Amino acid sequence: MNRRVPSGAAVLQAGITAAITDAVLAELVERGYARLSMEGVAKRAGAGKSALYRRWRTKQEMVLAVLAEVSVPMADVADTGTLRGDLRAMVSAVASWLTEPPFSRIIPDLVAEATRTSELAKAIATTIGEPRRALTRPKLERAMARGELPADTDLEMAQDLVAALIYWRMVVRQAPVEQDYLDRVTDTALRALRAAAD
Amino acid sequence: MNRRVPSGAAVLQAGITAAITDAVLAELVERGYARLSMEGVAKRAGAGKSALYRRWRTKQEMVLAVLAEVSVPMADVADTGTLRGDLRAMVSAVASWLTEPPFSRIIPDLVAEATRTSELAKAIATTIGEPRRALTRPKLERAMARGELPADTDLEMAQDLVAALIYWRMVVRQAPVEQDYLDRVTDTALRALRAAAD
Repeated sequence: MNRRVPSGAAVLQAGITAAITDAVLAELVERGYARLSMEGVAKRAGAGKSALYRRWRTKQEMVLAVLAEVSVPMADVADTGTLRGDLRAMVSAVASWLTEPPFSRIIPDLVAEATRTSELAKAIATTIGEPRRALTRPKLERAMARGELPADTDLEMAQDLVAALIYWRMVVRQAPVEQDYLDRVTDTALRALRAAAD
Repeated sequence: MNRRVPSGAAVLQAGITAAITDAVLAELVERGYARLSMEGVAKRAGAGKSALYRRWRTKQEMVLAVLAEVSVPMADVADTGTLRGDLRAMVSAVASWLTEPPFSRIIPDLVAEATRTSELAKAIATTIGEPRRALTRPKLERAMARGELPADTDLEMAQDLVAALIYWRMVVRQAPVEQDYLDRVTDTALRALRAAAD
């Protein structure tokens, strides 16, 4: 056990980081992005404001770092070896992310806030959207390589399709969703993408 | 000119209704649904609160009546005689509604609010969503009758597709949208719906 244990003011204690992460998510659910404050997060986390500022320079940076840390790994689903299997797994993963707490509350609030602040919209795309898409894009590229998708497939549209149908019906419309809805989203996307019949 | 002119306290003057409508939309853009108040709307409209309460019993009823009055007619696009033409017109109409002021601000805010209040979500569906869908559904039914769509087409999914792709990319992601994006949404929907080749 020769591992050097770091020490001093620069050390970021994992326990405190975890408490802050929980506090950020809880404040976003309860108060929303606009009313969340560094003070409120620090108080809820049982930490000093300096503990927050050692980690992130601004509220926006803190919120997006916390959201990315939880949101990005949720897009990392296992390969199934078929386009249908991979798309179905992506559909399930997106549905869990967008429709279950805490994100079912947090994301619509953040979207509303981002319509007022284009800088926030760009930062969300950079820290959450793009890393999530980078995780699923190789699955679609492999489907193209296997001949399951045409070589000229619009991969951005393919990724949009999965999330769009879930967000519109389940989040925006809050329509009753039948048991097999996620299967039907998958079938719809496969047809839209001109996938080879399977 | 024998038309009887109504008079008395029960008369709702059109000029005042128009001023209140403008005030509701402006307050929704500037303050959002949660912070909008009957007082604020009355003040901005230059009307008394009683003028509001003569028309609507609650804030929710007032806001949804005003939004429906403007939003529902926007879904009423002319028949083109072909499924492709009708879908393309629906796509344009939905894009104008969701992505241009004032609704580009109002709708994401209302969606966020509705995730906290299921009664509001239901009222939005009843007063805005369902009347809008009722206007476009006959176009899809005529396409089925003409043989352009399979007889077992999922019409709810067909209507979702148009709005979902626009809302996700242009409102949620705020991604750069190419000139031909609305054409590509139309093509994607036609393929997803297994439309007869045209």
